[in-house]
Amino acid sequence: MAAKTETIELSVDAFDTDYKRQLTWETLGVGILKCAEAHASRRGFGIYNVNGENHTWVLARLVIELNNTPKVYDEYKISTWVESIYRIFSNRCFSITGADGTPYGYARSTWSLISYSSRKALDLNDLKGMMSEYVSPEIECPITDYSGARLGGNAQQVMTYKVKYSDIDLNGHTNSMKYMEHLRDLFTLDYYSKNRLRRVELQYIRESFYDDVLLFYMQETREKTFDVEIRKTDKSSGTEKEVPVLRSRLCFE
Amino acid sequence: MAAKTETIELSVDAFDTDYKRQLTWETLGVGILKCAEAHASRRGFGIYNVNGENHTWVLARLVIELNNTPKVYDEYKISTWVESIYRIFSNRCFSITGADGTPYGYARSTWSLISYSSRKALDLNDLKGMMSEYVSPEIECPITDYSGARLGGNAQQVMTYKVKYSDIDLNGHTNSMKYMEHLRDLFTLDYYSKNRLRRVELQYIRESFYDDVLLFYMQETREKTFDVEIRKTDKSSGTEKEVPVLRSRLCFE
Repeated sequence: MAAKTETIELSVDAFDTDYKRQLTWETLGVGILKCAEAHASRRGFGIYNVNGENHTWVLARLVIELNNTPKVYDEYKISTWVESIYRIFSNRCFSITGADGTPYGYARSTWSLISYSSRKALDLNDLKGMMSEYVSPEIECPITDYSGARLGGNAQQVMTYKVKYSDIDLNGHTNSMKYMEHLRDLFTLDYYSKNRLRRVELQYIRESFYDDVLLFYMQETREKTFDVEIRKTDKSSGTEKEVPVLRSRLCFE
Repeated sequence: MAAKTETIELSVDAFDTDYKRQLTWETLGVGILKCAEAHASRRGFGIYNVNGENHTWVLARLVIELNNTPKVYDEYKISTWVESIYRIFSNRCFSITGADGTPYGYARSTWSLISYSSRKALDLNDLKGMMSEYVSPEIECPITDYSGARLGGNAQQVMTYKVKYSDIDLNGHTNSMKYMEHLRDLFTLDYYSKNRLRRVELQYIRESFYDDVLLFYMQETREKTFDVEIRKTDKSSGTEKEVPVLRSRLCFE
């Protein structure tokens, strides 16, 4: 049996940093997704293992919290383990540490397994036999779970964005980490100069596609805590209505 | 003496592909720049060697031409060598090949060495003693040099773009490869479905900064060949005038 955790080693490239010479959260997010895939595929339930059966893993929620952000040329490691499995969801945690083991931070994620044909989530009990021996609730992930963005009626529409060619990934929809980029672009350079992003929560609700117009609604629900809902216009029912694509909470300090 | 060429090995990650499952030109461009830095730094004239003297290498032109585009999970190599040195410019070429050596394509680039304090280009004869032993005009780079975008008076303004937080790199200006992304976003998904991007030319003229509004002018100067000029409004002289930031030619087939 493979170890319960999988670790990948990375370093911060000059092209993966912002103007403060700090690792971008998009690049960190991609590393987290790669680490998850490495863990699953080496244990028989990766995207290729389940793809053969016409299934794919879908990210439902992601929370990343960093007490310290890796800087240009820093080496860092991402480790992951499965924390729990429910009927249609599995929870996977991550630690992000420096080369010497000092923690930068942690992440929590929730996944479901979707059938390509029915687009419905599968009962993970079918995979549980394979996954359950790796479930490791004893490993500590000391950040709080997804808390849920809740916008009040006075949330402001702060940006509209038309989905472009470069947003679309090999699955034909907007790349999950491109949302992170667009969310971070809601804040000015001046705001980043005075504040550090500490935590991002993402809840993926609906896919968006090329040419979709995304509407960003934002509200500062607590000091330096911003709740965002990305919506798009759904015309499928004959009448136009705004439907949620993603909810996010961004916490600065 | 180190070899005249330096080679780095890469593979196409799922997150670095477009909807056609092909490597994005931005990611390839970053690989090219990394390969250039690896070549220079291992031979005594990299950014760190010259940085100590308060100088930095600046990319003036880049041409990439691909007869075939690497696809998701393909392994590929980038090799680079110095083709020639002039007074204030050096030309560096690249080959992009598959793991088995089959060429995907080539690239050409022109660089100058700038003083941080004066912002002026330095005479490369000062470095020539170190660089000249690596000049390798005998290695073939079978693509044509920068040909120069030339827009006529009837070029259309096709996009405006306000420079965002995510565009700004650790040098405080718009990341050179973010321009590539914005240029590629001038074309629709439908256009990409019917045409393959074969060649991109980039000429960097002026820096742009956070909150600058970039104006994209475009003209199809030959069938499937698009010349683009990115301009911004300069107010430094007291009167507003549009000044060029970048010129580009994109050739599809």
